[in-house]
Amino acid sequence: MFAPRPIRSSPRLVATLYRPAISRNFSASAARSKQNLVVIGSGWGGYEVLRKIDKKRWNVTVVSPTDYFNFTPLLASCAVGTLEFRCAMEPVSRYSPDVRIYQAWCDTIDFKRKTLQCMPATLPLSNEKKSASRTDGNTTFPGTGTPFTVKYDKLVIAVGAYSQTFGIPGVKEHGHFLKDVKDARAIRMRVLECFEQANQPIVTDIQRRNLLNFCIVGGGPTGVEFAAELHDLLRTDMAQRFPSLARLAKITLYDVAPNILGNFDNELAGYAEKKFKRDGINILTSHHVDRVEPGKMHVREQGEVHFGLLVWSTGLAPNPLVQSITALKKDEKTQRQHLNVLKPDGTPDPDVWAIGDAARSEGPLLPATAQVANQKGKYVTKKLNRIVRDKDSPEPFEFQNLGTLAYLGDWKAIYDRSKAERGPKTKESGRVAWLLWRSAYFTMTLSVRNKILIPTYWFLNWIFGRDLTRF
Amino acid sequence: MFAPRPIRSSPRLVATLYRPAISRNFSASAARSKQNLVVIGSGWGGYEVLRKIDKKRWNVTVVSPTDYFNFTPLLASCAVGTLEFRCAMEPVSRYSPDVRIYQAWCDTIDFKRKTLQCMPATLPLSNEKKSASRTDGNTTFPGTGTPFTVKYDKLVIAVGAYSQTFGIPGVKEHGHFLKDVKDARAIRMRVLECFEQANQPIVTDIQRRNLLNFCIVGGGPTGVEFAAELHDLLRTDMAQRFPSLARLAKITLYDVAPNILGNFDNELAGYAEKKFKRDGINILTSHHVDRVEPGKMHVREQGEVHFGLLVWSTGLAPNPLVQSITALKKDEKTQRQHLNVLKPDGTPDPDVWAIGDAARSEGPLLPATAQVANQKGKYVTKKLNRIVRDKDSPEPFEFQNLGTLAYLGDWKAIYDRSKAERGPKTKESGRVAWLLWRSAYFTMTLSVRNKILIPTYWFLNWIFGRDLTRF
Repeated sequence: MFAPRPIRSSPRLVATLYRPAISRNFSASAARSKQNLVVIGSGWGGYEVLRKIDKKRWNVTVVSPTDYFNFTPLLASCAVGTLEFRCAMEPVSRYSPDVRIYQAWCDTIDFKRKTLQCMPATLPLSNEKKSASRTDGNTTFPGTGTPFTVKYDKLVIAVGAYSQTFGIPGVKEHGHFLKDVKDARAIRMRVLECFEQANQPIVTDIQRRNLLNFCIVGGGPTGVEFAAELHDLLRTDMAQRFPSLARLAKITLYDVAPNILGNFDNELAGYAEKKFKRDGINILTSHHVDRVEPGKMHVREQGEVHFGLLVWSTGLAPNPLVQSITALKKDEKTQRQHLNVLKPDGTPDPDVWAIGDAARSEGPLLPATAQVANQKGKYVTKKLNRIVRDKDSPEPFEFQNLGTLAYLGDWKAIYDRSKAERGPKTKESGRVAWLLWRSAYFTMTLSVRNKILIPTYWFLNWIFGRDLTRF
Repeated sequence: MFAPRPIRSSPRLVATLYRPAISRNFSASAARSKQNLVVIGSGWGGYEVLRKIDKKRWNVTVVSPTDYFNFTPLLASCAVGTLEFRCAMEPVSRYSPDVRIYQAWCDTIDFKRKTLQCMPATLPLSNEKKSASRTDGNTTFPGTGTPFTVKYDKLVIAVGAYSQTFGIPGVKEHGHFLKDVKDARAIRMRVLECFEQANQPIVTDIQRRNLLNFCIVGGGPTGVEFAAELHDLLRTDMAQRFPSLARLAKITLYDVAPNILGNFDNELAGYAEKKFKRDGINILTSHHVDRVEPGKMHVREQGEVHFGLLVWSTGLAPNPLVQSITALKKDEKTQRQHLNVLKPDGTPDPDVWAIGDAARSEGPLLPATAQVANQKGKYVTKKLNRIVRDKDSPEPFEFQNLGTLAYLGDWKAIYDRSKAERGPKTKESGRVAWLLWRSAYFTMTLSVRNKILIPTYWFLNWIFGRDLTRF
């Protein structure tokens, strides 16, 4: 019924009219002349492959539980309403139908038969029983009862990693991670709800203080940036909307290490600590959380600490799929050089690559950052586009450190390039670094759509304040 | 900790600095020199009072389970991604802290003691037991264990109405209403999920057709506009993303009446029917739904009908609160003239007004439209602002029909002013009416923020297509 036809004066749709409709068959193993390239995951690694891969020469299939790419550096902003969630999302469907997209989990890989076993990440059909849903951080996906298989000729494993909790009880249940826009949304809802609850006339002052105690565990860039964004929110919009409540609010940043921002240059980390102290953000380093319960956690050095919101960002844990790949060993050196995974006999599997955080299941080779995943994605794509043209493989992969940025609130940031292998070793702090921060994200942000939306929201929220409706 | 202080070069925040911070006490009965005006509800009636009421002379409190106003005419657009949800939302918090806002349900009103019994619409505090949550349509709000009371000197009841289901079993559980942005969000998620599910390789063709069968019950403006918007979506973005699936999709509009758009001029209704038939939207009038089950409904004239999505909009049912007000009778004539509610002795209560759909619990006086609620809100506000200045009451309320608009898809609409009491009796159809439709909404849309956002999204979605990520 709904074949593509143009709407008058809509360039995009007129364009689509003259694009050959690709005939789709719905069997998992699409037999075509082109080779099947399957990409698992739509994160920094997988999405990069998806963008740059030659779709005319490869028959590309993406298997990912989400139908979007998370632009992670903006999640902290989204979590406090400085930006809308969709500013940090890029729909994978942009490449459909040229690319076949399955919203599903990849459960197992049969490297001999070259097939994946997948479980749809959609609600079960009405005639199916609902199977156990999967959870990544505090983002839960439904699982249906009917798995399916996908055949590959070449495979890129880019499933990313899970959030690290060090097995501390209660973190998953009562804490918030910040890895996905769904997490950001949950955090934003909770922050606003804390104020709504504290605003109730029957709430005691102790309950009020507890509700407005915001705890962040993990002094890495994510934790620091969220603390900074939250401080901006409390000091501006919340101070205006709930003047007396905002005065009771408290932000505390916990870390087990003696300093925050351990991966940053000491001077910059010091600058950050000073700024946070000035802003009244408490930094409790060398502190250990032993247990988390509803609304409170047990800190070894403090005892019981009540909170309204707990944000947990203490790094990454290996992805279950990657852990389950016992059929293959991973060799650090080869991994570092060609990103291939190794067969049991120790020789690299020429058809399978592991990139991004997924490639780090045995000891870290490189920091688990977007930058690394993105560069590995670029490298593998280049490789695949050469393979399909029967050209020989490019030079071994080499990571280029482009420096690290962290936002500190109040339009200030720190920028660290002092660890860069090549190019100028610079470090910046304050307003200049903030400008770098914004422009960096602005140019990195992928779609034109978001290039228009993001400044629009920055402008609107600067003029009118953030939209604080609980939705 | 977070007292309002300016951020450099942010006009809004500098402004807030010099605004006297209002000292808040957290006891429910705020004793101040000013009289307490309590408004229940933040819809077309209540929000209008909130906007225009003299906040310097009234001590205003709003009690509403949502912290935003739903700009209902745009919900259908939001439900299919033509606009983002926040374009159809106006935060009530804009008027905080000048206005005290409680996110809560009003359960009972004691007209003698002039108090309201309220139940917070936030999650229970960690030390409270969670009580049964309330449901309005398919929007559920948590309820906490601790109610509180609010005192009023003057009271405006603007709680709106619930969705009408005529007690047909299964509608609430398995159908979608379209009264709140949360409903719109649920519908959008479901439409996209239907396609994702139908896209799974193991799904049979019959399952596929069932999943892509979209049923709408209720041929009023809401049902018609949603059908039109959905058709736009399927014909454009979905046809591009899932070419072969879009061809299987089907939209059917059901109504018990012999015609759709009964409240419109026959000629215009005819125009709409013709357009829908041309577009391949099935119209099944004089059809009756007897029962709804997961994924299927029983239609008297058809038997079992499987669907992927069921949208239900067959009018309004009285709000439980209004029904429960047995202490007061409502007199149609007085209601119509002064909007006061009546005491048991038949005399109007000078301190209590009922406006919008809430005023219609005994037989319809005027159509239950945004227009009526909005005009009643304006009237009561005028009255209150005169009372507080000891001026005499304005002329009795008189509704002015400004005409009705309905979007029909493909940038066409119908506009009916033929029933207008005064002014030119006009009716328009097609592109002209569409222009009226867009400009009407555009000027009606309240905040400058949305006046910027809405055209931005119209433009972006026209150029780049809708954002179809399931989020």
